[in-house]
Amino acid sequence: MDDFELFGNIAKAENFINRIKDGKFLFSLVISYTETCEIPGITFAGADKESIQYTPPADAEYLHYGNCKTIDKIPMTPDGKPTPALLTKTALESSSIPHIVINAGSKISPQLPFIQTGLSPGKNISINPAMTDLQVSQAVNYGRIIGRTLASITDCLIIGESIPGGTTTALAVMKALGYKAKVSSSIPNNPVVLKNQIASMALDRINSDNPYDVIAKVGDPMIPFVTGMLSAASEINPIMLAGGTQMTAVLAFASKIGFNEKNTAIGTTSYISDDESANFKNLVSEIADVPAIAVNPLLKNSKFPGLRAFSEGFAKEGVGAGGTIIASLLKNRNNSSKFLELAEKEYGRIFTSQ
Amino acid sequence: MDDFELFGNIAKAENFINRIKDGKFLFSLVISYTETCEIPGITFAGADKESIQYTPPADAEYLHYGNCKTIDKIPMTPDGKPTPALLTKTALESSSIPHIVINAGSKISPQLPFIQTGLSPGKNISINPAMTDLQVSQAVNYGRIIGRTLASITDCLIIGESIPGGTTTALAVMKALGYKAKVSSSIPNNPVVLKNQIASMALDRINSDNPYDVIAKVGDPMIPFVTGMLSAASEINPIMLAGGTQMTAVLAFASKIGFNEKNTAIGTTSYISDDESANFKNLVSEIADVPAIAVNPLLKNSKFPGLRAFSEGFAKEGVGAGGTIIASLLKNRNNSSKFLELAEKEYGRIFTSQ
Repeated sequence: MDDFELFGNIAKAENFINRIKDGKFLFSLVISYTETCEIPGITFAGADKESIQYTPPADAEYLHYGNCKTIDKIPMTPDGKPTPALLTKTALESSSIPHIVINAGSKISPQLPFIQTGLSPGKNISINPAMTDLQVSQAVNYGRIIGRTLASITDCLIIGESIPGGTTTALAVMKALGYKAKVSSSIPNNPVVLKNQIASMALDRINSDNPYDVIAKVGDPMIPFVTGMLSAASEINPIMLAGGTQMTAVLAFASKIGFNEKNTAIGTTSYISDDESANFKNLVSEIADVPAIAVNPLLKNSKFPGLRAFSEGFAKEGVGAGGTIIASLLKNRNNSSKFLELAEKEYGRIFTSQ
Repeated sequence: MDDFELFGNIAKAENFINRIKDGKFLFSLVISYTETCEIPGITFAGADKESIQYTPPADAEYLHYGNCKTIDKIPMTPDGKPTPALLTKTALESSSIPHIVINAGSKISPQLPFIQTGLSPGKNISINPAMTDLQVSQAVNYGRIIGRTLASITDCLIIGESIPGGTTTALAVMKALGYKAKVSSSIPNNPVVLKNQIASMALDRINSDNPYDVIAKVGDPMIPFVTGMLSAASEINPIMLAGGTQMTAVLAFASKIGFNEKNTAIGTTSYISDDESANFKNLVSEIADVPAIAVNPLLKNSKFPGLRAFSEGFAKEGVGAGGTIIASLLKNRNNSSKFLELAEKEYGRIFTSQ
């Protein structure tokens, strides 16, 4: 596929694509929360501070209904740039890929049927441990149950996330597990200094090498939950982690607790893999022998500034956008130009209907 | 398959079996609650009155973990006869059929990941309407969402239920919708008089022909939710309603709001289809042109009295037992004698480990 850039082990990436391209896909969206997102300047995944907590359930509702229930409009930045769920919605709908929402610690439940785990939101890692060790074990165990079920009913399980502030906890986790991580952000002037400062404060709290303990101190509920999903699901069928920085943190924890590399790939957008303030490509290879696939959705060619913004460093990725676009292009035997057309149609629908 | 009895439209039943036998199955267990079960003498689905509310989540936990979390032992009658979930567990495990739990109005949440709908338990229909019309619509709509998703990720979706007291609400629904229903029960001396009395009290409350309103007055949350699932799911793939009387009530409501008969069958145990106090076979044909398949699990040959009890009129069916046994025999190219052996092994495991 000309629209994909493969990196890491290229032969493995090609093989992965060949294995999944003719099968059934299922997209699972894991929504979660870390109080770390309440630190001013850390995220713009919401119109204002108060509304950030509604972003994960609202993303889920928008995917289901085409509009939100918990809030009036679809999630957007303070200056009106839409959630990457717009790309995910376009991808899923155009290719009839089913999806299911999993609440793994979101502060607010979405107004639709979803898989409930009972996990609590994560604490602000700059001042508290994120979770207890017991909560981490429970998140992994529940993730394993769900991962096993979902992987056994599809040919390729795609896992995406919506957790505002999650790149900061992901940064802390990767540093704590010994990787030289630099992370992407939903903001072009990536607040690197602030994120590193928060990560350092969290890292000072670590007093053990035990990876469960590390996640408890500096992580968020999404990371152990998705790691549990990956760990059990990758024993059954191909799994695509759909995301950037946050999925590398999942890969980092998974490489400590065990998973099947042969059935695992990361799928993302080129806005993540080309991000010079981060080091996504090297990080993936450093963590595991897992291929990565990046798709360029050509949004820089859009007539809408709100879509061009993704290519200019806003949002870049999230809600499984990259992975679901890859799956939709494979399933529809389609290309990015056609995808752009559909995304523009969806953009038009949203901003004229609201 | 020699172990199956087919009725209704036999050619359709054979065709249904041929269409599903080589595909993937997914079992969904819908747990719910009606306060009608609190009427003394109406159900024995629990060791005592207080514990009946824990039966649906405990059934779900037992299927997942092999033991329960919400209560100490697996659900059983006051004199120690086990839940039909024992048969379901044996069927699913022996054939590696995945399952997912849906909470559609259970009073207590199970301690495992499950699909949450936010639906409320149903009221006691002898003294109150079960639900509001709005709650019925919401149950149908949420059922449609979940049904569409699950049907699109499997080749055959099996739907079972766990709702104590549910045969009484099912009786009321069928009478209200104009069918001459007699219903089965978890008790050999089926408390027919009491059930009819409760149904009559509920029927007196009906003041409209609108089927949504009928369900609101005399039903329970499981019926509209599963009807919604069936309605959307049967447009996509074959669906097996796994159960007896309660699934005929679903079929009755579904025949009012619309579903695809060609993709629908009922799967149950011979203990239901042979029950002379009920009229299952005629009822199904009267309601819709949908085939039914009954399996005889040969439990009367068991060395354990607790398993023989199913063949003597206790429990008979529930938690999707019949439908999942049918699926497991099809998938394993197996017969009932082999199933009995596995059920005895599971029975031994439970009653020695507890």
